[in-house]
Amino acid sequence: MTPNEKPKAVLLLSGGLDSITTLVLALEQGFDCHALSFDYGQRHNAELNAARRIAAKYRLAEHKIISLAPDTFGGSALTDESIAIPDQPSDGIPATYVPARNTVFLAYALGWAEVLEARDIFIGVNAVDYSGYPDCRPEYVHAFQAMANLATKSALEGRKIRINTPLIHLSKAEIVRTGFDLGVDYSMTVSCYAADAEGRACRICDACRLRAEGFLSAGLEDPTRYR
Amino acid sequence: MTPNEKPKAVLLLSGGLDSITTLVLALEQGFDCHALSFDYGQRHNAELNAARRIAAKYRLAEHKIISLAPDTFGGSALTDESIAIPDQPSDGIPATYVPARNTVFLAYALGWAEVLEARDIFIGVNAVDYSGYPDCRPEYVHAFQAMANLATKSALEGRKIRINTPLIHLSKAEIVRTGFDLGVDYSMTVSCYAADAEGRACRICDACRLRAEGFLSAGLEDPTRYR
Repeated sequence: MTPNEKPKAVLLLSGGLDSITTLVLALEQGFDCHALSFDYGQRHNAELNAARRIAAKYRLAEHKIISLAPDTFGGSALTDESIAIPDQPSDGIPATYVPARNTVFLAYALGWAEVLEARDIFIGVNAVDYSGYPDCRPEYVHAFQAMANLATKSALEGRKIRINTPLIHLSKAEIVRTGFDLGVDYSMTVSCYAADAEGRACRICDACRLRAEGFLSAGLEDPTRYR
Repeated sequence: MTPNEKPKAVLLLSGGLDSITTLVLALEQGFDCHALSFDYGQRHNAELNAARRIAAKYRLAEHKIISLAPDTFGGSALTDESIAIPDQPSDGIPATYVPARNTVFLAYALGWAEVLEARDIFIGVNAVDYSGYPDCRPEYVHAFQAMANLATKSALEGRKIRINTPLIHLSKAEIVRTGFDLGVDYSMTVSCYAADAEGRACRICDACRLRAEGFLSAGLEDPTRYR
């Protein structure tokens, strides 16, 4: 099969542990992946640099980084300096929740998929990483897919869109083990909500905590560099 | 009722005939309207200037213009100079269709609504203006609303989102008559897909044709200036 014969997919690539694992799974399935990242004023720009390195390493067909207007998202600890990043697990929806983030990301992915004539969109949401985010739940993803299949010319012409979430029912430990088996180098990724410019992690935020627990349960060493 | 007591709404304001009519209907219903426009490289920038004039005239609480990356949307005659704007009504979906446009617009509106703690989003889609666009149909709007109510923290907390489409079942003539009765000055609006910098219309594109027919059926004079 030549590269041109592979089916195209649009893949949301944040630069974190979940998105690289989703990528290797999509590549394993034979997709020609077109990666999409967003610069939305997230505090941890190290994440975008990680996305760039990952796209280069896997020689993806394309990596598009879309800059969103600075005030696109408000009201989140991830984008608003005046809201502290929590250092304790929260009950309910955490302060790092970003209003409508996955909806905006998937909307862009949908538009790009239509231009590429791709049927498949990959997003690395999962039940553990969910940690209270409404837009990481299976029922949300199903509803987005149903909407997408009424939204586009492609869908009306019979080219249905699939929102692929290969991690959605995996624990963090299972995700890490899956990636290790497929040769993922997790030192390339940045998960921390408050990483410094070099991508060194804080050890205390929700994302650091979930990641460390995942590696621990998987019995694998986390290559994360801490400050 | 003081202005502060009015319920907030996010309203998509393109600067065209439908969006100004949607705006006056939302204002009539007592909403405090926060207008949202997009600069997405549409050929007819006159439309955005119209949106600015409309927001100023109605003294809206806020008017946000979001610049989308130049290559956000591809494959449409509205954004791609290499695709001609059709001068004949088309069967099926016309070349002026922009992939996933309303999905991206509504996704941003959803995020802003959540930040504002608004429950209502207004969009001026309608069955006539639909002219083959999949994302102007009632079933699409319903599916977006269902998705939105799974996507957000507000919805999980019981603040359901409503996507209001007051024009969806009106003919162009009914829209124009509704607006006239509410004192809308349609000379402020630009509908033409190929308007020049001064907002003068081409007379031949789908949008010009639909608009002219609407005024004719309504027995009203169209204040559109032609080139």
